[in-house]
Amino acid sequence: MLRLYTAPGTIGLACEIALEEARAPYEAVRLNFRENEQRGEAYLAVNPKARVPALATDRGIITEAPAILGYVARTFPEAGLAPTADAFGMAEVESFMSYLCSWAHPAAAHRHRGYRWADDPAAIAEMRRKAPEVFGEAMRLIDADLFKGPWAMGEAYTVCDPYLYVVAGWLPRDGLDLAAFPRLADHFVRMGARPAVQSVLARVAG
Amino acid sequence: MLRLYTAPGTIGLACEIALEEARAPYEAVRLNFRENEQRGEAYLAVNPKARVPALATDRGIITEAPAILGYVARTFPEAGLAPTADAFGMAEVESFMSYLCSWAHPAAAHRHRGYRWADDPAAIAEMRRKAPEVFGEAMRLIDADLFKGPWAMGEAYTVCDPYLYVVAGWLPRDGLDLAAFPRLADHFVRMGARPAVQSVLARVAG
Repeated sequence: MLRLYTAPGTIGLACEIALEEARAPYEAVRLNFRENEQRGEAYLAVNPKARVPALATDRGIITEAPAILGYVARTFPEAGLAPTADAFGMAEVESFMSYLCSWAHPAAAHRHRGYRWADDPAAIAEMRRKAPEVFGEAMRLIDADLFKGPWAMGEAYTVCDPYLYVVAGWLPRDGLDLAAFPRLADHFVRMGARPAVQSVLARVAG
Repeated sequence: MLRLYTAPGTIGLACEIALEEARAPYEAVRLNFRENEQRGEAYLAVNPKARVPALATDRGIITEAPAILGYVARTFPEAGLAPTADAFGMAEVESFMSYLCSWAHPAAAHRHRGYRWADDPAAIAEMRRKAPEVFGEAMRLIDADLFKGPWAMGEAYTVCDPYLYVVAGWLPRDGLDLAAFPRLADHFVRMGARPAVQSVLARVAG
């Protein structure tokens, strides 16, 4: 049985959706970030980075969303969540996830986690001010260029889709109108209609 | 023939080393960042992100270092640059690369590219001040926890090694002493002794 360590409002949600789509046997452990559970001794033994998500497997712990999503795709090939036998196709999947994890996600994080990169409150405020602009630019590039449609990678639904869905879901909280990203907005609605997404959201809310 | 778009001082070097280790047929195109060649029309047609590296293949362009490194490992399996048939082993490789691309590399980038996340010169200066501390913390976690030794993933040399080598090479320019990261310092020396690394460095310098 896989165990996913996650927390509400984090990219852990993308991994939980992927596990659900794969019909993987798993349980979700939801950390309480308000009580800083991710920095507690028990969780640091799971993930010394003090971050979620982390996936406990029978071979050990996997951290980082792209690695967990790749693992789910490879471990449950019947779900067809990535073109695992195609070197170029996998590179496209990894490129998409990498842009999200190394650029779009950190861009958004500058709005509410500027303390990671500065101590001066004025600098943190300046990052918070600019973050929606930088995050919006990243998402515009995805909307215009990287997103193939109808799913992120084209005809096939892949692990890129829950990843994109969760990150796109952060646009409104940054004051950005999802409607300004027409292909992502359409994708967001279709993602929300998937039974796997609805099951996970019901469980998170419950 | 593969074509790698790269530039001196960038993470493109890791991809070039991996291509060299794989004995892949490739040519390197070196962009002139001082003349902003990465923002020129010709290169934007290759990579609309205006970043390096990008790898042109017979199926199309691949961007993002982890995706290019994964592609090289999968396309030249005889070089053994990643445990491509092992779902958990690949997840470990991807996790390591993801930590570099989503956390260590952006942490370092706050020193000289703070303008990406702020306009106010004082905020940019504050990021520049704090960057070595954040980057150093990331590299300490790798040195203490993620690095298995003798190579990043243990006994087998993988694409994680050139990636780590290039990022660790940025420590001194950020005023951080490589010797404070003993396992990474040892790794750096052993990497520098590899024929593939020496060939690439000679070509970049020449």
